[in-house]
Amino acid sequence: MKRCVVLLSGGVDSTTVMAIVKSQGYEIYAISFDYGQRHKIELEKAKKIAALYGAKKHIVVDVDLRKIGGSALTDDIAVPKARVIDATIPVTYVPARNVIFLSIALGYAEVNEADEIFIGANAIDYSGYPDCRPDFIKAFEDMANLALKAVATNTETKIHIRSPLINMTKAQIIQTGLSLVVDYSLTFSCYDPIGGAKHCGECDSCILRAKGFKEAKKERDAPPN
Amino acid sequence: MKRCVVLLSGGVDSTTVMAIVKSQGYEIYAISFDYGQRHKIELEKAKKIAALYGAKKHIVVDVDLRKIGGSALTDDIAVPKARVIDATIPVTYVPARNVIFLSIALGYAEVNEADEIFIGANAIDYSGYPDCRPDFIKAFEDMANLALKAVATNTETKIHIRSPLINMTKAQIIQTGLSLVVDYSLTFSCYDPIGGAKHCGECDSCILRAKGFKEAKKERDAPPN
Repeated sequence: MKRCVVLLSGGVDSTTVMAIVKSQGYEIYAISFDYGQRHKIELEKAKKIAALYGAKKHIVVDVDLRKIGGSALTDDIAVPKARVIDATIPVTYVPARNVIFLSIALGYAEVNEADEIFIGANAIDYSGYPDCRPDFIKAFEDMANLALKAVATNTETKIHIRSPLINMTKAQIIQTGLSLVVDYSLTFSCYDPIGGAKHCGECDSCILRAKGFKEAKKERDAPPN
Repeated sequence: MKRCVVLLSGGVDSTTVMAIVKSQGYEIYAISFDYGQRHKIELEKAKKIAALYGAKKHIVVDVDLRKIGGSALTDDIAVPKARVIDATIPVTYVPARNVIFLSIALGYAEVNEADEIFIGANAIDYSGYPDCRPDFIKAFEDMANLALKAVATNTETKIHIRSPLINMTKAQIIQTGLSLVVDYSLTFSCYDPIGGAKHCGECDSCILRAKGFKEAKKERDAPPN
């Protein structure tokens, strides 16, 4: 049975990735991060989603990015509301977050002898974070293939970083998930939940989520060509 | 004033790096990790060393690598004693440790607007860890230059990963430090300290430390050419 690690936040993208790898017959090692984020509720969602997809293992790793700060998600900076999402990188950007998450996932993959790591990074309907782009993912993979004991001691072993959603719109991601019977009511996207538990509807993440569902519905309801 | 981040474990190598960057006039942002290591006493040493070298800031970031395990330093695996150090990678190898530490350092560097990160990695008198080799360091730097907001939004900015000790023997590292008046009695190297506080003298790290001091002394005492 093929093994993979999945970075699981409990949002739309990573849950779609869980459905994809499940449909492809992987044994799943899920990993989530308690990094001092405002929206810690996503970890509860992630636990339920990992169980639903029969993950062989799911760990939540503590990494205290509040010590570094510099982001609206991990510092005393307000999460922007009802922002027009453009090419600028917003204050919700967490410095080096995907680098850090992929690095820890790499250690987890090595210990569990998985040579594929799946990340729901997306470079279309996203907030402009540099560590979601294809060239970053490729460079991380190249680096990973020099970093591990598994690779240094066995020239047959190659680490692959898979980002199956990277060129999809949010609507396409949702359509892919729906075709795999994903229950998106289990997912959580908000950066700054009301009372810690309810989507605010106005942060970037809520806006992109709503836009995705609206467009996915429009396409679904369109007459066939 | 040039700013740099220094990965500081409180051992011989990272303390020598502190002395080097201090002598070169950098403003120092030191970073250490509480990663569930057996030898947590190194963090107390690191704090004192950061203060001694006048670090502008020193943070200790929690990242719980015990959740991943797979190493004698972070799992229920005995630290090997009196081992002959050869080309094999020992059980003290922590999967992806330098990847994880450099990644968190990268976020710290970005927030503090430092574009140089110093690591005391060494590929001569070392335990054969793959993430201490020059080609890994170079690949990490390449990846870092695609990952950050600072780089994505300003084509002038380049991240540099500096590993000034990488091609030195342990004796050369110590000689370099002594020429910069490093007080090595402040440093700590043991993987498995007796009573949590005393060098065991038998783990790889203790063996390499002793060998380094012995050879450095021999060279110092040798008659001049």
